[in-house]
Amino acid sequence: MIYMATDFGRRGPYVGSLHAVLQRAAPAVPRIDLMHDLPRTDPRRAAFLLERLMPVVECGSVLLAVVDPGVGGPRRPLIASAAGRWLVGPDNGLFEMILRRHAPFRRWEILEQPATTAKTFHGRDLFAPVAARLAVALADGQIPHLPEAVVKVRALQGDEPRPGGDWPDDLAEVIYIDDFSNAMTGLDGKKLDKRARIVIAGKAGGIEYRESFSAAPGGAAFWYVNSLGLVEIAVNRGSAAGRLSLAPGSGFEIDGKDSGR
Amino acid sequence: MIYMATDFGRRGPYVGSLHAVLQRAAPAVPRIDLMHDLPRTDPRRAAFLLERLMPVVECGSVLLAVVDPGVGGPRRPLIASAAGRWLVGPDNGLFEMILRRHAPFRRWEILEQPATTAKTFHGRDLFAPVAARLAVALADGQIPHLPEAVVKVRALQGDEPRPGGDWPDDLAEVIYIDDFSNAMTGLDGKKLDKRARIVIAGKAGGIEYRESFSAAPGGAAFWYVNSLGLVEIAVNRGSAAGRLSLAPGSGFEIDGKDSGR
Amino acid sequence: MIYMATDFGRRGPYVGSLHAVLQRAAPAVPRIDLMHDLPRTDPRRAAFLLERLMPVVECGSVLLAVVDPGVGGPRRPLIASAAGRWLVGPDNGLFEMILRRHAPFRRWEILEQPATTAKTFHGRDLFAPVAARLAVALADGQIPHLPEAVVKVRALQGDEPRPGGDWPDDLAEVIYIDDFSNAMTGLDGKKLDKRARIVIAGKAGGIEYRESFSAAPGGAAFWYVNSLGLVEIAVNRGSAAGRLSLAPGSGFEIDGKDSGR
Repeated sequence: MIYMATDFGRRGPYVGSLHAVLQRAAPAVPRIDLMHDLPRTDPRRAAFLLERLMPVVECGSVLLAVVDPGVGGPRRPLIASAAGRWLVGPDNGLFEMILRRHAPFRRWEILEQPATTAKTFHGRDLFAPVAARLAVALADGQIPHLPEAVVKVRALQGDEPRPGGDWPDDLAEVIYIDDFSNAMTGLDGKKLDKRARIVIAGKAGGIEYRESFSAAPGGAAFWYVNSLGLVEIAVNRGSAAGRLSLAPGSGFEIDGKDSGR
Repeated sequence: MIYMATDFGRRGPYVGSLHAVLQRAAPAVPRIDLMHDLPRTDPRRAAFLLERLMPVVECGSVLLAVVDPGVGGPRRPLIASAAGRWLVGPDNGLFEMILRRHAPFRRWEILEQPATTAKTFHGRDLFAPVAARLAVALADGQIPHLPEAVVKVRALQGDEPRPGGDWPDDLAEVIYIDDFSNAMTGLDGKKLDKRARIVIAGKAGGIEYRESFSAAPGGAAFWYVNSLGLVEIAVNRGSAAGRLSLAPGSGFEIDGKDSGR
Repeated sequence: MIYMATDFGRRGPYVGSLHAVLQRAAPAVPRIDLMHDLPRTDPRRAAFLLERLMPVVECGSVLLAVVDPGVGGPRRPLIASAAGRWLVGPDNGLFEMILRRHAPFRRWEILEQPATTAKTFHGRDLFAPVAARLAVALADGQIPHLPEAVVKVRALQGDEPRPGGDWPDDLAEVIYIDDFSNAMTGLDGKKLDKRARIVIAGKAGGIEYRESFSAAPGGAAFWYVNSLGLVEIAVNRGSAAGRLSLAPGSGFEIDGKDSGR
């Protein structure tokens, strides 16, 4: 199985090209579009969201993820393995939260590159073909020899620095505004005390916890633990992003002695 | 086969999560995304649109539909069968027009719920797993024992009230604005006399019928029977929604003695 | 394999209906969504984009493409074959650049039409069923007898005029604004000298070539050869469409003695 997560958006030929390449190179391997609007050109925020998708990524499968503002530059193309999954994409921190929270992990630099690789679309020309080869090998049961058996790589040592290695374990900022205008944060819902309030600079009062939408008065902002396990700010039957002027990157404070952070 | 229709939108991990769950639980069952922008949080308008998709839903398959503003509240999770299809989703009227127009039908309340069900995403955690089990059983030919053979249910009696049971048979309002800014209504095109005119309050004159776009003068509003069989208001090479200030919920009158309504 | 490219957009039941029809008529044939936002109702601009997707369309497969403003009118429904691919869609020039650049080709007019064909959705009711029958036959190895063996057609002679036959070989205008607000043109990147500058009326100076985004100063407009091989105007970390007021159809001049055009 190959799962895809990118910041390409659904418009244009970009996602379709990934599918076409994967279908040709791995015709028997099912493909899942996890999401294609990861935080755009922002591997850090994307990393916190991507990690939360791990529960739906089946063990023994490949996660092809591309948020790659440095495409064509010196950043490494990467294969990593963690928690029984194979990860393929740019080595810019996009997989950092997966690796950190699902240790032990291993990393390899991809050393080959097709001659026809477009400088601006490594997703199609480099990462997708590698993901396809891994997935085909996994379906064939060649697991002990991966990834060396199917792609030219260099194993990265554990002490080599990782892009994103200095990021915090949780991110007290908005990482994603969803289609309902709710604001997803980079905070783990299990770590935040339910008595904590979220305080946004310039906005009066603090935002309190509610277990669900139906528990919040209509029009009132509240925070809850969303279906990915992240702290999310919402307004029942309204727009949290609009009301509170939230956008990816918006910061906030946590008010509450036992917030667990 | 599993067909999906939701109001999740294409952004975010929501549709992708459905696919991931279905792929894991029913890997051999094909999946079709019918649409993911059903009228948002509006089971009533969605019901009139969803019913019109039945012709492309193959007999013997499962329709997983989620427009579920009451998720986490007391509304029942539902399985229904009608016209040889199995329907899975919230019992909030979303399937009402399918049931009513494709009687006889049967209904069951779903009684089990995985311990890990997120309060805000029954689509992923409750409905998709049930849809997958039904589809797998159908592929295995266990039809006589469904749904009891695969999920804990309680059969609903015919005289138990149905949410939406009091809705009209046709809905004289805009139920959906499509990507071309045409305004789909909840009226069956077969029931409306072609001489009828649609009158929108505050707009001069009445909107007349044209058989197709090419039969309408450029820039003129007209109504026609769309490819789903619904009355639709359009402007040839223009925006009906913009020109006529139409949005989901906009009402109108029918002018015409023999409108058949 | 069936590849789809349309201007339907992702909203509404239109793309989903194509999939449903294809799944029913050709259940064993994989489907790829190449893109569904081809230049809307504009077969000419769409033709230049569609041709650039040929490298990802596998030989021996079917390309179902629909940009069809004349649906329901006198334009012919078409099957064509070129470069080992089968093309199905309206005969309005949409395939013109594929045919011209991948000669020799053959063309057939589709003569049958299901009685239930909606006047506004030949994609679902006419083209998809034909594409499915071709793809099933191809999978069965009936290639010598196509398309006559599976659909009632009339072979078009080489000297019959082609819609779009008078279009230029390259189009010096914007054909598509992508999700990153870059402006794709109808110019082949291989034909334009790297010293050429793109001059937009009313904008001072000319836009120079850069090999990639990282080679352009932040905020500066430049042109490059995109991953489809087309000349594209972009602004590093900015919006080319917004900054330069570009939209599909925007024209420009090429400044450069050896521009190769």
